[in-house]
Amino acid sequence: MLLYSLRLLGGLCVYISFTLRLYCVRLVIQLISHKTEIRVRYADTDQMKVVYHGKYLEYFEVGRAALIRSLGLPYSELETRGILLPVVEVYAKYRRPARYDDLLSIEAIVTELPKVVLKIEYKVFREGEMESIAEGYTIHSFLQATTGKPTRAPSYFVQILEKAMASSNDSKGYH
Amino acid sequence: MLLYSLRLLGGLCVYISFTLRLYCVRLVIQLISHKTEIRVRYADTDQMKVVYHGKYLEYFEVGRAALIRSLGLPYSELETRGILLPVVEVYAKYRRPARYDDLLSIEAIVTELPKVVLKIEYKVFREGEMESIAEGYTIHSFLQATTGKPTRAPSYFVQILEKAMASSNDSKGYH
Amino acid sequence: MLLYSLRLLGGLCVYISFTLRLYCVRLVIQLISHKTEIRVRYADTDQMKVVYHGKYLEYFEVGRAALIRSLGLPYSELETRGILLPVVEVYAKYRRPARYDDLLSIEAIVTELPKVVLKIEYKVFREGEMESIAEGYTIHSFLQATTGKPTRAPSYFVQILEKAMASSNDSKGYH
Amino acid sequence: MLLYSLRLLGGLCVYISFTLRLYCVRLVIQLISHKTEIRVRYADTDQMKVVYHGKYLEYFEVGRAALIRSLGLPYSELETRGILLPVVEVYAKYRRPARYDDLLSIEAIVTELPKVVLKIEYKVFREGEMESIAEGYTIHSFLQATTGKPTRAPSYFVQILEKAMASSNDSKGYH
Repeated sequence: MLLYSLRLLGGLCVYISFTLRLYCVRLVIQLISHKTEIRVRYADTDQMKVVYHGKYLEYFEVGRAALIRSLGLPYSELETRGILLPVVEVYAKYRRPARYDDLLSIEAIVTELPKVVLKIEYKVFREGEMESIAEGYTIHSFLQATTGKPTRAPSYFVQILEKAMASSNDSKGYH
Repeated sequence: MLLYSLRLLGGLCVYISFTLRLYCVRLVIQLISHKTEIRVRYADTDQMKVVYHGKYLEYFEVGRAALIRSLGLPYSELETRGILLPVVEVYAKYRRPARYDDLLSIEAIVTELPKVVLKIEYKVFREGEMESIAEGYTIHSFLQATTGKPTRAPSYFVQILEKAMASSNDSKGYH
Repeated sequence: MLLYSLRLLGGLCVYISFTLRLYCVRLVIQLISHKTEIRVRYADTDQMKVVYHGKYLEYFEVGRAALIRSLGLPYSELETRGILLPVVEVYAKYRRPARYDDLLSIEAIVTELPKVVLKIEYKVFREGEMESIAEGYTIHSFLQATTGKPTRAPSYFVQILEKAMASSNDSKGYH
Repeated sequence: MLLYSLRLLGGLCVYISFTLRLYCVRLVIQLISHKTEIRVRYADTDQMKVVYHGKYLEYFEVGRAALIRSLGLPYSELETRGILLPVVEVYAKYRRPARYDDLLSIEAIVTELPKVVLKIEYKVFREGEMESIAEGYTIHSFLQATTGKPTRAPSYFVQILEKAMASSNDSKGYH
């Protein structure tokens, strides 16, 4: 009886570990990631001689716009097609300060296909450094520009993301 | 003959001085002026530990909005009525720096009734100081919101300014 | 035996419920809250005709500065005393948009005495409305201005907060 | 006598015209100019669906920083050497609006070697357009970072500008 239980447990462990591995593989490969560079402006700094924390939300915006543009559908075109993507939630964690004239790399990452909302994650790196100086995410809803009403993610937009995720799967993975 | 000339010259001088005085009186009295207060935010400062020069254009905006609101016609209502007032020219002179947490007084002044453009002048004071720390002006055109085409200053807007100028003449003058 | 256990369990429940109740009382009463007003500037809006989401971090800053000033110790004085309070984490949730010329009320709330970090919560209301349009929090570390090294919350700062919490307990509670 | 006067006048004119021509030649050739690109962010727009006029002062800053960097002396290094370049005057003229996602080219131009102040002029172009959408200038004083006192333009800075002007003279002229 005990033995059987142990076996069962063992089997369960194998199953769990197998599932986890599969899941990890999916996590690692199926995401869209894009990096873009910005240089810190004097206007971005505050009297602590570092970038004002609120400015990172603009940096996230630059990263997000570059990611969407890289998929062949600039955000400006989304708006032209009548879809707005307002931010409904934002989070940022500041590890080390960025300073005037720093060259920063903003990485924007999508790991899930959007249904009602779109989540985008960000990592901010200083040029030549391996560890991020800040991280965060934004969550966006989809609004119809004409009515201002929420809507589901438009299918053409989801397809573009899906295609990008698939191609990241085929070729390069997470970089 | 010489004597006559001198008399004539004297008369001319009296006339000129009289006219000038009248003119000065008009200049001094017929203007609209309004003061509003703002407190300098941390976000407004830069690493020089003073307010970033570009921020003053926002301060001017706050002063301008308060002036127009004081006339009983908030700028937001002007837009509702289909008139936009984009800035077409701006000038600022910075005499002394403003710092974090300073309480500033923004004075906005209109001295001329608008025809095709509206000019507003600004003086920025630090609380308790007599001399301004910055000055400047903005020039605005009038646009029809629907067409985006330039238009003349709407008559109801000019009348409001005219009335305000007249009442400043009657009662209080320049303060 | 079983009976005894049940009794014990009963006693435990009473104890827990009593403790919880006490704790709730503390939570409800012992906090510091302050409201301050700001008017939305044209510069704050974006082409979605609402306030740009990043601007709320400035609004939070205004609320935070007003709260600390209300305790008799403006943040500028904290810096003069050699303490910096950089933001290490920020979160915001946007429920409904704010628009140009809206009069907003920013409520900043402290519910816990700081040790290594200080957490401040925010609620943004539109004038005359009961439900908040946005909420969030910031977490701050304490840095020595001279060395840039982290430090514990200075005792004079903690005492000021403690006193404010106690007096909120005595008189008015959470409003 | 009259003839002599006329001759004299003629000579004077030739001299003036010759001097003017020389002066023009100097003006046209001896300047430093640099172009840099920026993309309009969502945060830059306002509810008129164009770039907020105050943002151009940041664009000017980006152009100015790129110009100084192109001379081999980034502004950040100037500050490290103890020299601050605060803006003491700014002017901007807005001809046509810039919009979200526009790719702008900011041209910064120095035409005179600084003594007590440095004047930099700007032209903002939309990608692929010949006529500027905005123009302006900033005037900067030189401050000693330690004392905050005004100082003359440091000789190493003037020499760098001089060299850049000379080389623009030799080779390429105004581009």
